Amino acid sequence: VLLVDEDRLREDFLALAEIGRLPDGGVSRTSFSDAHLLARRWFHERAAAAGLKTRVDTAGNHSAVLEGNSPDSRTLLLGSHLDTVPVAGRYDGALGVLAALEALRTVKDAGLRLPLTLEAVDFSDEEGTVVGLLGSFAVSGMLTQDLLASPRGGRPSFLAAIAHAGLSEDRLSDARRDPASLAGYLELHIEQGPVLERGGFDIGVVTTIAGSRSYRLTFEGARRHAGTTPMKARRDALLGAARFALAVSDAVTDRFPGCVGTVGGLEVERAAFNVIPGCVRVLVELRAPTAGQLDALEAEVVDHMARDAAGADLALTVERVGRWEPIDLDASIQTCIVDVANELGLTATNLLSGAGHDAQALAAITPTGMVFVPSVGGISHDPAEYTRWRDCVNGANVLLRVALRLAQTPETL
Amino acid sequence: VLLVDEDRLREDFLALAEIGRLPDGGVSRTSFSDAHLLARRWFHERAAAAGLKTRVDTAGNHSAVLEGNSPDSRTLLLGSHLDTVPVAGRYDGALGVLAALEALRTVKDAGLRLPLTLEAVDFSDEEGTVVGLLGSFAVSGMLTQDLLASPRGGRPSFLAAIAHAGLSEDRLSDARRDPASLAGYLELHIEQGPVLERGGFDIGVVTTIAGSRSYRLTFEGARRHAGTTPMKARRDALLGAARFALAVSDAVTDRFPGCVGTVGGLEVERAAFNVIPGCVRVLVELRAPTAGQLDALEAEVVDHMARDAAGADLALTVERVGRWEPIDLDASIQTCIVDVANELGLTATNLLSGAGHDAQALAAITPTGMVFVPSVGGISHDPAEYTRWRDCVNGANVLLRVALRLAQTPETL
Repeated sequence: VLLVDEDRLREDFLALAEIGRLPDGGVSRTSFSDAHLLARRWFHERAAAAGLKTRVDTAGNHSAVLEGNSPDSRTLLLGSHLDTVPVAGRYDGALGVLAALEALRTVKDAGLRLPLTLEAVDFSDEEGTVVGLLGSFAVSGMLTQDLLASPRGGRPSFLAAIAHAGLSEDRLSDARRDPASLAGYLELHIEQGPVLERGGFDIGVVTTIAGSRSYRLTFEGARRHAGTTPMKARRDALLGAARFALAVSDAVTDRFPGCVGTVGGLEVERAAFNVIPGCVRVLVELRAPTAGQLDALEAEVVDHMARDAAGADLALTVERVGRWEPIDLDASIQTCIVDVANELGLTATNLLSGAGHDAQALAAITPTGMVFVPSVGGISHDPAEYTRWRDCVNGANVLLRVALRLAQTPETL
Repeated sequence: VLLVDEDRLREDFLALAEIGRLPDGGVSRTSFSDAHLLARRWFHERAAAAGLKTRVDTAGNHSAVLEGNSPDSRTLLLGSHLDTVPVAGRYDGALGVLAALEALRTVKDAGLRLPLTLEAVDFSDEEGTVVGLLGSFAVSGMLTQDLLASPRGGRPSFLAAIAHAGLSEDRLSDARRDPASLAGYLELHIEQGPVLERGGFDIGVVTTIAGSRSYRLTFEGARRHAGTTPMKARRDALLGAARFALAVSDAVTDRFPGCVGTVGGLEVERAAFNVIPGCVRVLVELRAPTAGQLDALEAEVVDHMARDAAGADLALTVERVGRWEPIDLDASIQTCIVDVANELGLTATNLLSGAGHDAQALAAITPTGMVFVPSVGGISHDPAEYTRWRDCVNGANVLLRVALRLAQTPETL
């Protein structure tokens, strides 16, 4: 069977990990930073060295292209992203882009002429230092004016970042691809969670990318002198926030299997040893595989538990911050991934993706599949992020062989 | 009976409230700020206008002096402070200094020649923008090298502040007063808590100034992706901190009557919606009237409950930050305050001071008494701080008449 060149993939992996390398072995390549732009140039050089065509679209997405056997061939996209969070590991995003490039090289070196064009894409700003899924949203026609008007990192840093990358705000949306020109999208990614490792699985088949909703809650009580105000005369905003954080964790653990609920931030206004907290702001995020579960979670956690935690003594304000709908990935591609894994002697399991990925944008316009490989200890967004090399190669081979199956039978998509 | 001149006291109160006045009616006169220095000059001008002598010591304490009937007369200090927290009300500290000045003027205008010198003192930096009790510690000989080496606001701002006030670090300790030269210390202050108002009392007689101990706790778990880490695979540092905050409040309320325990701060390191908190720092303060209760509280809260809250999953670090011992005030002065209040037709009750005051420094070297008047709603350290004018006048009259009693019978001290 046709497999990727492990040594060539390894060489690329180590070379890329040098770009934006941190002293402790991690990397930092935030969107459109110098290190990020350097990594993208390196990607294009590697593609050109392999005899592949390269392209950059108006959203800054960088591609390597292996053309199909006809001018009318539709395109099967394979990809991920080269940008990272500020203090990151070497695998998140990078593995998917390198495996995509390696798949194209393997097909080219084998002299195969496929009925589909293969395109390895490095999407812009997946991690969201600037906007979040900027490149894949643009390709999918989902880059709204609203999103650009209030980018995650603020307008000034958004404008500075795209200018630094040589992009123009007015032309970002021109990166939209005609769905009729696409045959599908495949992405290899590390799991970023502990499920595959704990279950002893080689390959994860993503069924659904979870939706998420986030909220900013404010608990307000009475800011008073901690020395002179008896315990029973207090209206302590921190105690309300603490009750809320524990209630969310207990309720989601006990009654919403497969969902997560996180209080990721809790800030005491003007904190001091000798002052009872009068105002506390809380960041909450809920994730679930279906919109129905998100509705139920929201009703339970935000409408019900927050009010209970505030009780009669505290005022409560709820601000809805973010909302991403859950999306199911293509069922026939899921079957294909399982078949390919079995053929390679690998164990596979279905899996929910709790994290967001470029695949969630692409799934809106073309049949999409995602392959996960195990993250040791479930660690990600950290220099300690690690996936065993054997698992990286397994994932790259699954990606290649799913692409070959889809390319030879594009009509089944 | 001899009473203070209410109108003159009121005029001073309103004039002082203009110095450092905030738009919402509060004041800001942090230690050695321009507003604070202006208030001190104004105090000396008012003293001089009344024909009193003035003095400034090497710790910046400002006094008005009415000499006794002999060169050997010991000094009865009456005082409080003119500095404030950054956003303050008009009563905390100011009332005590103005009532002390008014007491001296009343005695002087009545033509009384007492066997004690009366000195109205405005102590430096009670609130601790710079060091905390800087002036009264200096007078009591308690200004240690340790305290000056790590001042609350940091060395650079300490050095800048004392330079701005024209003080020299080397000479601060020279403000120490010989205990043999002192007859006692009396301080009128607002309660800053709700006890007098709730009980319907006119006057509070402080029996003890509570001791306090403060701690910085760090809970450490695992910083992980909130979307990909199942609820049962988490080591969430915020949940440990939340359990701790609730346990402290419940335990102190239920099992330590008369004590307080406060989590005044809780900070999530690198907080984000989509990251499980890996490291959370907590500020805790315990206050109690006796060292034995502080020991018991510390054993329960810090050694026991913090460990329980961290459980097996979280690492816990405890740093001891501050420690002030409780101090009992002079018993015969307490009796004298009650007698004087009754004589004036005022109701009085014994009371613990949960807040720190200059009196706790003076109590170490001379018989000390404190008189409290009610704070409406228990509000303090806030522009909404308010004490009814009738209560302010009652407090000033009690201060005057206790001073007269002590001055005429100094040997009972």
